[in-house]
Amino acid sequence: MTDVRVGVIGVGNMGAEHAGILHQSVSQATVTTVAGPHAERTRDVAATVGARPTTDSYDLIADPLVDAVVIASPDETHPDLTIAAIQAGKPVLCEKPLALSVAECVRVVLEEQRAGRRLVSLGFMRRFDPAYVALKAELGAGGCGNPLMVRCVHRTVGYDPGANPLRSITASAVHEFDIVPWLLGSAITEVSWHAPRVSAAAGFPDPQLIALHTESGVLAVAEQFQNARYGYEIRCEVVGETGTISIANPRRLVIDSAGTESTGFPADWRGRFADAYRLQLQAWIDAITAGGEPALATAHDGLVAAAVAEAVIASMKGDGRRVAVTAPRLW
Amino acid sequence: MTDVRVGVIGVGNMGAEHAGILHQSVSQATVTTVAGPHAERTRDVAATVGARPTTDSYDLIADPLVDAVVIASPDETHPDLTIAAIQAGKPVLCEKPLALSVAECVRVVLEEQRAGRRLVSLGFMRRFDPAYVALKAELGAGGCGNPLMVRCVHRTVGYDPGANPLRSITASAVHEFDIVPWLLGSAITEVSWHAPRVSAAAGFPDPQLIALHTESGVLAVAEQFQNARYGYEIRCEVVGETGTISIANPRRLVIDSAGTESTGFPADWRGRFADAYRLQLQAWIDAITAGGEPALATAHDGLVAAAVAEAVIASMKGDGRRVAVTAPRLW
Amino acid sequence: MTDVRVGVIGVGNMGAEHAGILHQSVSQATVTTVAGPHAERTRDVAATVGARPTTDSYDLIADPLVDAVVIASPDETHPDLTIAAIQAGKPVLCEKPLALSVAECVRVVLEEQRAGRRLVSLGFMRRFDPAYVALKAELGAGGCGNPLMVRCVHRTVGYDPGANPLRSITASAVHEFDIVPWLLGSAITEVSWHAPRVSAAAGFPDPQLIALHTESGVLAVAEQFQNARYGYEIRCEVVGETGTISIANPRRLVIDSAGTESTGFPADWRGRFADAYRLQLQAWIDAITAGGEPALATAHDGLVAAAVAEAVIASMKGDGRRVAVTAPRLW
Amino acid sequence: MTDVRVGVIGVGNMGAEHAGILHQSVSQATVTTVAGPHAERTRDVAATVGARPTTDSYDLIADPLVDAVVIASPDETHPDLTIAAIQAGKPVLCEKPLALSVAECVRVVLEEQRAGRRLVSLGFMRRFDPAYVALKAELGAGGCGNPLMVRCVHRTVGYDPGANPLRSITASAVHEFDIVPWLLGSAITEVSWHAPRVSAAAGFPDPQLIALHTESGVLAVAEQFQNARYGYEIRCEVVGETGTISIANPRRLVIDSAGTESTGFPADWRGRFADAYRLQLQAWIDAITAGGEPALATAHDGLVAAAVAEAVIASMKGDGRRVAVTAPRLW
Repeated sequence: MTDVRVGVIGVGNMGAEHAGILHQSVSQATVTTVAGPHAERTRDVAATVGARPTTDSYDLIADPLVDAVVIASPDETHPDLTIAAIQAGKPVLCEKPLALSVAECVRVVLEEQRAGRRLVSLGFMRRFDPAYVALKAELGAGGCGNPLMVRCVHRTVGYDPGANPLRSITASAVHEFDIVPWLLGSAITEVSWHAPRVSAAAGFPDPQLIALHTESGVLAVAEQFQNARYGYEIRCEVVGETGTISIANPRRLVIDSAGTESTGFPADWRGRFADAYRLQLQAWIDAITAGGEPALATAHDGLVAAAVAEAVIASMKGDGRRVAVTAPRLW
Repeated sequence: MTDVRVGVIGVGNMGAEHAGILHQSVSQATVTTVAGPHAERTRDVAATVGARPTTDSYDLIADPLVDAVVIASPDETHPDLTIAAIQAGKPVLCEKPLALSVAECVRVVLEEQRAGRRLVSLGFMRRFDPAYVALKAELGAGGCGNPLMVRCVHRTVGYDPGANPLRSITASAVHEFDIVPWLLGSAITEVSWHAPRVSAAAGFPDPQLIALHTESGVLAVAEQFQNARYGYEIRCEVVGETGTISIANPRRLVIDSAGTESTGFPADWRGRFADAYRLQLQAWIDAITAGGEPALATAHDGLVAAAVAEAVIASMKGDGRRVAVTAPRLW
Repeated sequence: MTDVRVGVIGVGNMGAEHAGILHQSVSQATVTTVAGPHAERTRDVAATVGARPTTDSYDLIADPLVDAVVIASPDETHPDLTIAAIQAGKPVLCEKPLALSVAECVRVVLEEQRAGRRLVSLGFMRRFDPAYVALKAELGAGGCGNPLMVRCVHRTVGYDPGANPLRSITASAVHEFDIVPWLLGSAITEVSWHAPRVSAAAGFPDPQLIALHTESGVLAVAEQFQNARYGYEIRCEVVGETGTISIANPRRLVIDSAGTESTGFPADWRGRFADAYRLQLQAWIDAITAGGEPALATAHDGLVAAAVAEAVIASMKGDGRRVAVTAPRLW
Repeated sequence: MTDVRVGVIGVGNMGAEHAGILHQSVSQATVTTVAGPHAERTRDVAATVGARPTTDSYDLIADPLVDAVVIASPDETHPDLTIAAIQAGKPVLCEKPLALSVAECVRVVLEEQRAGRRLVSLGFMRRFDPAYVALKAELGAGGCGNPLMVRCVHRTVGYDPGANPLRSITASAVHEFDIVPWLLGSAITEVSWHAPRVSAAAGFPDPQLIALHTESGVLAVAEQFQNARYGYEIRCEVVGETGTISIANPRRLVIDSAGTESTGFPADWRGRFADAYRLQLQAWIDAITAGGEPALATAHDGLVAAAVAEAVIASMKGDGRRVAVTAPRLW
């Protein structure tokens, strides 16, 4: 069978990661072209996977040796590049978020509707994490009875100079805005925002705590902590009428030393979600090969998550009041 | 040395527990009198500890063979009985809550002020739980840097016919209203109340989620779940600028069987807090013997916790809005 | 009720610990006399519990203000002091081991037989540890089916100048020789000894691994590690036909910091077995008060454990060959 | 780049697993031919990966559309098929054990020596398990000081009608005989065998306990339990002079329900070692593509493990005496 020829836009951590996974660990995929703004870095990343480097993302999209496009460039470039891929008729996997505003998301969704077929997939990779997948299955099997509450924690080590309270929400907490409805099968309808005092490390209130009410009446609380320092950690517990189901922290070693028993945290999301990224890319390639609908998140999922993010920001600016989520109906 | 002679009011679960612990596991204490409303049950409980039974609590308080009084009768009887003990000039350990309203707490505090010396101790036993004690010590040692957030979970098995959303707050969540300021050394100044839909099991919104803001700028979130079904569980995690500190669930056995590795939960607070109750009673007896100030919570601590409870109830009735805590200044 | 008046022989770590527990945490016990070889240290320990100090252990045993005796002096003094207490007709709780040889244990057992009544209890305190007690109960309830194997680990921090491979067995591993038959209800009939090369830290083979075969056909393997450095740790797993049951390490806090999640180990047995020591002393006092047979280990249990230790030492000297356990039949 | 065309011999659990992984999850591999004894089952497995079915393993080895061979047929067929692949000059990945006797292993090793180049790889897949890899790295980094002891546990659910005590050793415990020297970088020189009574479930002594002494003086103890019933579980703890390092059980969910907190065990090795099998196959394919030496275990590693197995069986038949390991020197 012929491999799917993939072009990867973006040569930062995430772009290099995607290129490497496609090259080394995904069946029936070949990375043919890599695009990035800096010629040298782009050439280096391209060389590791035997691909052609280019500094022009639109050149990559137009490349006849590119069957499908991965977008891992800065967040603000996502909508325009995704639209260009749609217009070129090529399947595209865009890293989350689809865009930083609902309005920009709408542009993408409308463009895909014009194309008349599903071309866009969105990198909400948690949907492919084996622990989240098992959690959803166990929930469906009634493992905790009817869900009443979801407790989410998303902590990163921090020191990100670009971090700010809005970005915490549009680019990080957005994972929770997607995964909670995906787990529960019910949309988020109302939110409120809460926080401790301004943290010295962050320069803004951090952690933030976001309350999410779903259509089905579940209350989810999502902690988003940019400067957790101690390690990268994701928690999710669904609390139901008969019990609870939580995802476990992956761990490889337990070390007894110097008075303690300890296990390590990954430094960032790449260690924690290595399986999820690989399985997501494989599912995307498999769907392209088979000509079917990929099981990845859609552009519309990205729009819905962006609408929740805007409501959360409104609550933040409104001193924590409850704000209804309103997503434009485009379908 | 002569034992302290203790009278125990209340022969329900908690009263029988206190009488048994004092009799079997506390140094320098003898239970001499036990009071309860039902003659037969009272006689049975008294017999297990070799004490005199009575159905009149005020008779017990007046008994010359009683040096000190434990009150473990229904919540609504706490203030009158405590006041009677104060008036008799006897040290009294009253189970939490001190009273179901701030106004009633005020009566007790004023009566003790009139007595001119510390007579009242309040059974916020978590302050004696070895895990909470270790958490406070580790916090003080800077184990997580400056605290930013506290995450509390209080889950009980449920099936309590008298349970209702107000009682969840005044009689159960009140533990958190005491322990959070005790851990942080900072008062709760503002609260808000959140909940999922009405739970079928409870007949009211359950779990409830309570946000507590402290004077020092920490945000605490306390889950209070009356009908958790799966077991009795207490969690507390302090999230700070460099890491987090959590109390661990006590566990004795790990069982590998039928496809799972498992550990058991206690059925209720007696299993979880057996050490705390014993150590609290021993500290109380030791202080009486030594003539010093007991390290137990005070009547004023009970009043402050009641003021937080009233603010939470106001938020609940005000659709989750933020409500400031106002405790009368009596000192 | 009148307190039992206890004399404590030994003012090292263990003696001071017993005196303190009896004084502060045991119901119906008063420490009246404390004996130790060094006058000053003895006076200090005695002062903390309000007791009379003496440098003469036999004077303490004869003291009319002493109803019962605790022996926590060096191991080699145990048999003579225990015999003196028997001859004085006083209940005695002797720290393990009862003696360093089977022959010495025989002397004690015969002396108690001459006295015609149970006077000796032996400090195999694990029998009172809540985790071991729960393990025995779960075993009895069929929690893992018929037991096939027991895996024991006993690790201490080390740095003990008096440590040597024989003492590892007679004074430390002896705990396993008692607890395994107690758990299984079946005697140890054959043993073999195994070890890695000589450890630099110990100067002798350390850890040692001891295989114990029971009359019922179970194979137990006991690791005895004197210089584990990282902390004090006890493990016990019973492997049965349908599953396994293990005791859990007690832990109070979980700390997330500097890239790891960690929990602490106790520094030594006092932290790990604080409950066991307290409950053992309380059970001993209760039995003396009630005039009944204490549930503590007997002199004969000490003799049987010593017989296993001698067989293990014979295997060690016999290059690891299997050696049958032969305890003299004295009853 | 052109895919490596792989022929898979064996359509049992393991063969189907290898074919599926190569097809779905390995980069640059295509399964072209599948061989099995039963035409129908072979056709079904071949169909799932789009390969040609054959009932003749030697026909598969000769197939010009097969570049490399995976052998996952019954253990006793391994040496002849491996030799045939060597003679065909094709790289071969043979499932462990290489053969059921040292003599058979010798035949394979000599045949490969005659071929003059490395063609054989052996499926000791634990070497690719991320936890074992991390354990080896941490050991190398001095994470526990000099190793003194290794504790291995290998438990399977059982119910295998073909299970017997010899097979437990040659086909299951053989994993430990490979992984312990691989972890420590030191050969096993002496062994002894120990067991409880005959287990009702197994009909032979089960679990078995095997002591392994290495050239470097480490004592490893390997429990091999065929009928553990409760689940599939692998443990490995290296005990060193300053601490210990253990691999952690992988776990995805923690469930609080019906009085317990629990996590699940996998049913068998496929769930536990899914990553190891995938990474081993990818490493094998990558080495074939790159023309280099694969990092997988060699035929000689298989011979050495078989020599340990024969020594263990000699100890078993010799009532547990210590037996030296003697592997023929062929290089």
